[in-house]
Amino acid sequence: MATLGFVEYKDASPEVKAVYDDIMTTRKIDWINNFWKALANDPATLKRTWQDIKQIMGPGTLDPLTKELIYVAVSVSNQCGYCIASHTASAKIKGMTDDMFKELMAVVGMANETNRLSAGYQVEIDEQFRK
Amino acid sequence: MATLGFVEYKDASPEVKAVYDDIMTTRKIDWINNFWKALANDPATLKRTWQDIKQIMGPGTLDPLTKELIYVAVSVSNQCGYCIASHTASAKIKGMTDDMFKELMAVVGMANETNRLSAGYQVEIDEQFRK
Amino acid sequence: MATLGFVEYKDASPEVKAVYDDIMTTRKIDWINNFWKALANDPATLKRTWQDIKQIMGPGTLDPLTKELIYVAVSVSNQCGYCIASHTASAKIKGMTDDMFKELMAVVGMANETNRLSAGYQVEIDEQFRK
Amino acid sequence: MATLGFVEYKDASPEVKAVYDDIMTTRKIDWINNFWKALANDPATLKRTWQDIKQIMGPGTLDPLTKELIYVAVSVSNQCGYCIASHTASAKIKGMTDDMFKELMAVVGMANETNRLSAGYQVEIDEQFRK
Amino acid sequence: MATLGFVEYKDASPEVKAVYDDIMTTRKIDWINNFWKALANDPATLKRTWQDIKQIMGPGTLDPLTKELIYVAVSVSNQCGYCIASHTASAKIKGMTDDMFKELMAVVGMANETNRLSAGYQVEIDEQFRK
Amino acid sequence: MATLGFVEYKDASPEVKAVYDDIMTTRKIDWINNFWKALANDPATLKRTWQDIKQIMGPGTLDPLTKELIYVAVSVSNQCGYCIASHTASAKIKGMTDDMFKELMAVVGMANETNRLSAGYQVEIDEQFRK
Repeated sequence: MATLGFVEYKDASPEVKAVYDDIMTTRKIDWINNFWKALANDPATLKRTWQDIKQIMGPGTLDPLTKELIYVAVSVSNQCGYCIASHTASAKIKGMTDDMFKELMAVVGMANETNRLSAGYQVEIDEQFRK
Repeated sequence: MATLGFVEYKDASPEVKAVYDDIMTTRKIDWINNFWKALANDPATLKRTWQDIKQIMGPGTLDPLTKELIYVAVSVSNQCGYCIASHTASAKIKGMTDDMFKELMAVVGMANETNRLSAGYQVEIDEQFRK
Repeated sequence: MATLGFVEYKDASPEVKAVYDDIMTTRKIDWINNFWKALANDPATLKRTWQDIKQIMGPGTLDPLTKELIYVAVSVSNQCGYCIASHTASAKIKGMTDDMFKELMAVVGMANETNRLSAGYQVEIDEQFRK
Repeated sequence: MATLGFVEYKDASPEVKAVYDDIMTTRKIDWINNFWKALANDPATLKRTWQDIKQIMGPGTLDPLTKELIYVAVSVSNQCGYCIASHTASAKIKGMTDDMFKELMAVVGMANETNRLSAGYQVEIDEQFRK
Repeated sequence: MATLGFVEYKDASPEVKAVYDDIMTTRKIDWINNFWKALANDPATLKRTWQDIKQIMGPGTLDPLTKELIYVAVSVSNQCGYCIASHTASAKIKGMTDDMFKELMAVVGMANETNRLSAGYQVEIDEQFRK
Repeated sequence: MATLGFVEYKDASPEVKAVYDDIMTTRKIDWINNFWKALANDPATLKRTWQDIKQIMGPGTLDPLTKELIYVAVSVSNQCGYCIASHTASAKIKGMTDDMFKELMAVVGMANETNRLSAGYQVEIDEQFRK
């Protein structure tokens, strides 16, 4: 039901097809998930978002799995159903084990709890943290 | 100005002192940050929260630095000023380099962006992610 | 499955019917969407919310379409599924084209990204913005 | 530094003064806090917001203190610094003891934690809760 | 479809069964809801979360119903579908009437509104609230 | 106190200076605000973010002022202090009058309220909105 519908590969413009091809090549998969097929209604946003994701989520000082865990953590905090489903799947492909997932959830839960405790108790930032 | 003020070490009950000592021993530091001194007004919550944090943030399948990066990611998403300051400092102590921080921020920013794109385009979860 | 069920027009009290009639007249439609039928379980909240919406979303210095775009932007940021669906539909009725929708989404995504970058980098407010 | 500045009592229009007077009378206080003095730049919003607050926060099936605790809970979840400060103060005036505050914070923290655990584990709603 | 599936009572380890039994005894019910069956994939988190919830949500200075209302308020602010459904059901069991629910929703809605008005108008915290 | 400090123009690399120059030229201003000076610690993110912002916030089907209002709306919903201050200032420069600001705030507040009412009442999406 996506707002503007999905752009399927066979119906895509050459510009969109090029992005789809790059996604499949980069990820070594043979299908495109709904997020990109929805974004493809706006080729400029599709292209920009994919290029940003490709650059940001690739290997760096942090490895791709760690980055994907962070992506899941943010998506869970934000209650984004689609993102939780898709990035949890991506994380598994990149090597997240069940034990890693459980620890990830424990940290995300705890962070959300103490974020509110510190706000609720109106805790001032320590001088030691202000540099 | 914390809501209930801070409980300083010298004024703490033996129960609170025991937690303070454990925090300093575990973290190899000689001071207690404001978060714990605010929570100490409620010794049960202080003790529970510290024990949970200690268990969850310790070594596991994920290493302590990765967990701390996840903590920062959540705190940034939630706009929790105190938590951003304190966990960024903790992450540095645990080995986060400036380059890691920059990559972390890039991922957090991107995740927050695509979380809204997927919600706004009302993207349905792919069958492939539903198992 | 709404928590308290829906109040259908034929079962509504005169007080609720009057609000329903005003909604349909104001919006030039012949049906009531689920949000109002759920709120109608609490006639005081129904009446207050409708009056507020009617006043706030009507023509002013900002035109009704701009206001509706802002409503969608907030709903997307908040991951409110019902609100995204209903206000996107309203925006279309008020004249939002597909191109406007795409630009709206791009801005909302970008704002959510930079909101976290500025928080994560702990950026202080410039003197120039403090007046 | 509020965006539009504050409207002080002595400079207020009769319409704004009437709201200020009603706030002070209702709350049995002799000053107006900054929130209202900022809103007063928009008399229509000032009046509407005050009337809504007055109606909603007054005695009902839930007593005023319980309502104020709920207000604090929401403000803490949302990381709204001003609202946490002002509604914590209001709650104390309405009878919130330190012990109540501590329990309130514990519940808010826990709810924020389990909200993420249930989202992260992608827990489906039980049939038993769907009626 | 929960990420790691559900752990049913008959398949549970003795450690998990003990938690399930305690949940059913404490709540005087004869079934376990999906949240716990998902968490049971991580027995340490299951046990810790249940013990925390049991301690925090039990009778204290605030009665169990008030705590449950606060839990619902947070869950609604966070747009957590599962938590809204489950804690609304729990609140009803603990005595929440329809009228209480309606007032709860009105307060939660209003708090979310004024949280943004105070942030948007950049209202400074009054000196009177800073102690 | 920004986490990595600020990169001032005189100390910037040619790559960063080029972005700073483009920001000042595009915006017809002679200074760089703290957000960019913090991001400049990560030239890749600085460049990408500026290029994205420049493209997205420029004239399109939606005019630049409308886009800026949407940016403010998101920032207010997210309680991002820096973003509220900087984008409110930008909006004024682009033509936002005080009356527009007041209407903007009213819409943002109302949207945040009804987002929670619809979630709290567990309102199902109408068939009419599902196409």
